[in-house]
Amino acid sequence: MSKKVLMKGNEAFVRGAIAAGCRAFFGYPITPQNEVPEYMSRFMPEAGGVFLQAESELASINMVYGAAAAGVRVMTSSSSPGISLMQEGISYIAACELPCVIVNVQRGGPGLGNIAASQSDYFQTVKGGGHGDYKLITLAPWSVPECYFLTALAFDLADCYRNPAVILADAVVGQMIEPVEVPERLETHIPPKPWATTGRHGRAHKNVVNSLWIDPPVLEELNKRLQATYARIAENEVRFQEIMTEDADLVLVAYGATARICRTAAELARAEGMKVGLFRPISLFPFPTEQIRQLALNGRRFLVVEMSHGQMVEDVRLAVEGAARVGFYGRSGGVVPTPSEILDQIRFEYNKLTGSDKPNRSVVPE
Amino acid sequence: MSKKVLMKGNEAFVRGAIAAGCRAFFGYPITPQNEVPEYMSRFMPEAGGVFLQAESELASINMVYGAAAAGVRVMTSSSSPGISLMQEGISYIAACELPCVIVNVQRGGPGLGNIAASQSDYFQTVKGGGHGDYKLITLAPWSVPECYFLTALAFDLADCYRNPAVILADAVVGQMIEPVEVPERLETHIPPKPWATTGRHGRAHKNVVNSLWIDPPVLEELNKRLQATYARIAENEVRFQEIMTEDADLVLVAYGATARICRTAAELARAEGMKVGLFRPISLFPFPTEQIRQLALNGRRFLVVEMSHGQMVEDVRLAVEGAARVGFYGRSGGVVPTPSEILDQIRFEYNKLTGSDKPNRSVVPE
Amino acid sequence: MSKKVLMKGNEAFVRGAIAAGCRAFFGYPITPQNEVPEYMSRFMPEAGGVFLQAESELASINMVYGAAAAGVRVMTSSSSPGISLMQEGISYIAACELPCVIVNVQRGGPGLGNIAASQSDYFQTVKGGGHGDYKLITLAPWSVPECYFLTALAFDLADCYRNPAVILADAVVGQMIEPVEVPERLETHIPPKPWATTGRHGRAHKNVVNSLWIDPPVLEELNKRLQATYARIAENEVRFQEIMTEDADLVLVAYGATARICRTAAELARAEGMKVGLFRPISLFPFPTEQIRQLALNGRRFLVVEMSHGQMVEDVRLAVEGAARVGFYGRSGGVVPTPSEILDQIRFEYNKLTGSDKPNRSVVPE
Amino acid sequence: MSKKVLMKGNEAFVRGAIAAGCRAFFGYPITPQNEVPEYMSRFMPEAGGVFLQAESELASINMVYGAAAAGVRVMTSSSSPGISLMQEGISYIAACELPCVIVNVQRGGPGLGNIAASQSDYFQTVKGGGHGDYKLITLAPWSVPECYFLTALAFDLADCYRNPAVILADAVVGQMIEPVEVPERLETHIPPKPWATTGRHGRAHKNVVNSLWIDPPVLEELNKRLQATYARIAENEVRFQEIMTEDADLVLVAYGATARICRTAAELARAEGMKVGLFRPISLFPFPTEQIRQLALNGRRFLVVEMSHGQMVEDVRLAVEGAARVGFYGRSGGVVPTPSEILDQIRFEYNKLTGSDKPNRSVVPE
Repeated sequence: MSKKVLMKGNEAFVRGAIAAGCRAFFGYPITPQNEVPEYMSRFMPEAGGVFLQAESELASINMVYGAAAAGVRVMTSSSSPGISLMQEGISYIAACELPCVIVNVQRGGPGLGNIAASQSDYFQTVKGGGHGDYKLITLAPWSVPECYFLTALAFDLADCYRNPAVILADAVVGQMIEPVEVPERLETHIPPKPWATTGRHGRAHKNVVNSLWIDPPVLEELNKRLQATYARIAENEVRFQEIMTEDADLVLVAYGATARICRTAAELARAEGMKVGLFRPISLFPFPTEQIRQLALNGRRFLVVEMSHGQMVEDVRLAVEGAARVGFYGRSGGVVPTPSEILDQIRFEYNKLTGSDKPNRSVVPE
Repeated sequence: MSKKVLMKGNEAFVRGAIAAGCRAFFGYPITPQNEVPEYMSRFMPEAGGVFLQAESELASINMVYGAAAAGVRVMTSSSSPGISLMQEGISYIAACELPCVIVNVQRGGPGLGNIAASQSDYFQTVKGGGHGDYKLITLAPWSVPECYFLTALAFDLADCYRNPAVILADAVVGQMIEPVEVPERLETHIPPKPWATTGRHGRAHKNVVNSLWIDPPVLEELNKRLQATYARIAENEVRFQEIMTEDADLVLVAYGATARICRTAAELARAEGMKVGLFRPISLFPFPTEQIRQLALNGRRFLVVEMSHGQMVEDVRLAVEGAARVGFYGRSGGVVPTPSEILDQIRFEYNKLTGSDKPNRSVVPE
Repeated sequence: MSKKVLMKGNEAFVRGAIAAGCRAFFGYPITPQNEVPEYMSRFMPEAGGVFLQAESELASINMVYGAAAAGVRVMTSSSSPGISLMQEGISYIAACELPCVIVNVQRGGPGLGNIAASQSDYFQTVKGGGHGDYKLITLAPWSVPECYFLTALAFDLADCYRNPAVILADAVVGQMIEPVEVPERLETHIPPKPWATTGRHGRAHKNVVNSLWIDPPVLEELNKRLQATYARIAENEVRFQEIMTEDADLVLVAYGATARICRTAAELARAEGMKVGLFRPISLFPFPTEQIRQLALNGRRFLVVEMSHGQMVEDVRLAVEGAARVGFYGRSGGVVPTPSEILDQIRFEYNKLTGSDKPNRSVVPE
Repeated sequence: MSKKVLMKGNEAFVRGAIAAGCRAFFGYPITPQNEVPEYMSRFMPEAGGVFLQAESELASINMVYGAAAAGVRVMTSSSSPGISLMQEGISYIAACELPCVIVNVQRGGPGLGNIAASQSDYFQTVKGGGHGDYKLITLAPWSVPECYFLTALAFDLADCYRNPAVILADAVVGQMIEPVEVPERLETHIPPKPWATTGRHGRAHKNVVNSLWIDPPVLEELNKRLQATYARIAENEVRFQEIMTEDADLVLVAYGATARICRTAAELARAEGMKVGLFRPISLFPFPTEQIRQLALNGRRFLVVEMSHGQMVEDVRLAVEGAARVGFYGRSGGVVPTPSEILDQIRFEYNKLTGSDKPNRSVVPE
């Protein structure tokens, strides 16, 4: 039995988290994610969990670190500048192999920027904004139901692989209102956590959470274990959606809110007779490298669309390795691209397919 | 007239900075860069500048932000975790188009890690550890003289392009002792800074430094200007060194301390009759993409060696775009690869060139 | 039905607090009060409350501020330097007329000092370590049962008068182990808190907690209300203990651990035929001014003994107003006075009563 | 040769400090003292010193701690809440016997309060807002020239006694504009500081600044040395002003801006035939205890006037010890008393002298 509930993306992160057994939230206000701590402050105590507004994002992430070490399902959320402040803590949590969920409702940057939607923190999240060779499981919702279910999934993946997971959203997705089919009881898997620092419970040893390994070979051993984990994640957890790609000449690649707009643009293009599809990565790490490579080897060309000056496009190019043309179209600073401007860009790329040799305009328009 | 002075890499950063007119330093202690603030505390007051040990790296970078806004040549230094703590501030400085120099003497990570050498912060520096579409000029010294002169150059480039510049070093380079030919008077170019917040000086308006642009088109305008700057930097400031690449079948690609070890390994390989060269990027942003692509088009294959699990290798692959094999060999956690283990890897890759089809072992050895 | 439980003073603060309905604790480790957060981390979750180790004492007191505003019974604890860090927050909480309990297990000062017992924070607590004309209800336990019951009382007084209350203890009392007659159910009075910021609950207005009153007459009005509260506290909440004072010529005045030692010293003095009693203030604010004045008017002389260089002695002198001699004996820096050295001092003072005119040695001995 | 310069109190603190050789200032903005850092940011670099806006008052005072340890004449300034944030640092500096100057331009409290004048931080400054038995040299200017010369004196006293010195001012004095006779060259005495942590300079030992003394007798030794210093200060540095006290029946006691208003009130009282004088403590620690006691013994009665609910009045009562009536009149919350309301209070007290027995109204008027 489920029931349909109308809610905002920012509320869905909260409801999904609590349904998945999240029982601690630490955060600090920043637009456009303020509804997340607001709803948390209301629903978390009802669920018997801890809500705390910390004195800064720095404090938040270190409280997340502590709660994660204690084996609690714990979450924080913020928006771009606040996430930057968490980079040291995120590296520590990753090094300690602790599960937690971090929601980033991206806003326009760099600097203070503004509070409109953006996708300029892809590199920070996927390549590593903190120091060291760690990786973050990264999921990108494009709808309110996905805000709900991907957040819940993020907790399961984080626990399963003992690794932080990020929901990389944006201001459009966070503010969007849609119905969610909320299950009466969400299926979730909280594994036993024998490593948690919750006391000896009669054992001879106590658990220690630590990221200091003075001896280089020992630290390298940790890194190899982490790399092995990332390899397992890459093998098992790739998630993506293909729309109208089967017969496509040109495949748009986009995630989050941008993917919704690209879907409309692809439909408009189809109406004009252009065979255009959409490939939407849902997991950004692991990235659907193999799937995109196959599309390239099968003759598709690509147009990557991002609300940035080109970040995910690098992962697409790394997947394609020169086997097909990869165009790029990006807007930034909180400007959300319209279907019609993407359609223009599709026409340009599509003509290239069929003999046109205009110069590549795959940059922000003048 | 110059004189030869024996010094440590960490001292050379300081001497190069002060010779280049740096007159403010804000930092916080962390091994293996502690000699930087130590020497700064001694030499900076003698030069009539400000040395201040801040209460944290967070405070340091924001003091750098303030001093940079006032038009002073300013520097901070830290090591990996401390640099992570600066990510929000770095994004702000980049957004405000302010020049400054940041030295990162990388140590083993992630987390607290250890104090031995590493190159695991490449992504953080080059792709963007903070939020938003900014880029940092990044220079990687492989010797003590380069610690001196690249630091000085970093100030000139930062001022010229009004952009932060990073010296991406490592514990080996920071602790190394070599003679430096110190010029009596270093040639440096400090441009006028009419944008600095130093008072009206009779003008009608006052200067304001700001990174908040609420209106998306206005923020996108800033981003386009930044992208134009990055394009100019990419066009004009690529720096690299090629050693024995002219006739090479296999080109090692490495930077910093790793490049020194690779040079030895290449020489050992030559002694065995293998035609091996070394390509050393000196500027990591801008990356010598075109030079590497040309080498690939001219038939060279590559072996990228890093003290990480593979970060710069992505930029090499993006340059090569499938036109040549790109192998990878990495150590991490503070383990510095030896010439002989690199030589093993060279033999493996070289055999591939000549018909071997062993599985790719381009990962950290078991 | 009650049961006798053996416990440490530091544990008794925790058990008394939780029995009194305390459901939130925020703190940061510092010796000699570390058992307080340790026990809180164990017992508070069992009681369904929130335990959180904050990132500093500054964070702790501001979290106390927030929880108090939400109407929760909340406590923090620390030792001398940590309490100094809380002074701004304490002034804010007092200005906002919010109830909370702060435990100070005093250690040797000033500065880092050491971890041994001290009473050098009397002025800070009773006169006002923060800015503005506020006062803190201050209770000083001399035994483990008082650690338990005065902590519980502190919550009732704090709620009753909407004012912060401090338990001014010391390292001796905190580390002492004694049996406590723990009631099955502690009688406590948690009043309704219609002012708490817990939502509108259907009312037209929302509650606001604020200490900014830009208009001076408005702020003076707040101060007058606070002064009226302090007058009511002074009228109703004076607590003290008199031992052997009825026939005493000389009355020792001491609180906390020092009072226990003075009691022994007084008994030793009695054994030598000197009529010595002990007056022990239990509430330091409100101070038992009237009771001491009456003793002075009835011919008693005084010897104040403190683990400080003379702080409470000022309040005794203000009470006595020249009507009787007030001697002083103090030790500091973590040195706990012995009964025999106090006995020496008693002999000296007692001889003064009976004609001796030696110079006043009422200082720390050479 | 001197020249008359018109300036604000807040500017005079800066000019006096720099004239006295202050070469480092660390602060954080807060009204009503913002002109202090503003002028410092302008004049300090001209004097070859360091101005730095820290990230908080907590950071400021710890930077003061560091600079003082290095032997530099260093100052910070703030207003009430900011000074509360400094209490831990102040206790550390006092424990380390380091000289520095702290300016508190008091504002209405407690809490955020407001930005109008107040004298409610007397206890915090004179009794000890931080932990431990330390004392702060405290000077209270009542005019702009005193802002200049007492600040300069504060540096000399701080250095002479190796103790922090506070200028306890208020918003009225800080904002007041008056001419100051600025000497061409201020006479100041900066003693050698062989204890400063500026390097070994060929000696066998290095200097260490430390406030941690784990062994109680050793820490008590420090406290005895501090107490001996305070005794020397009390003996040598009492400063005060008597106006029309020679024949007075009633002596007003007030400091700072309040003393100016009391002077006018005393003159108005004289015009009505009442013999009223003014005793103005200039040093609050050391307090002119002996001088006030002598006035009491010579038959004067007292009316203490403060912009607080009664703080300095305790020190007056401790001096008088019941030998004379001590009335009190206070305003708070930023309300500055007028001469006429003080005159009312004088009439009331004066009538008491001559037989009236109305109840004591020595509180804030309804």
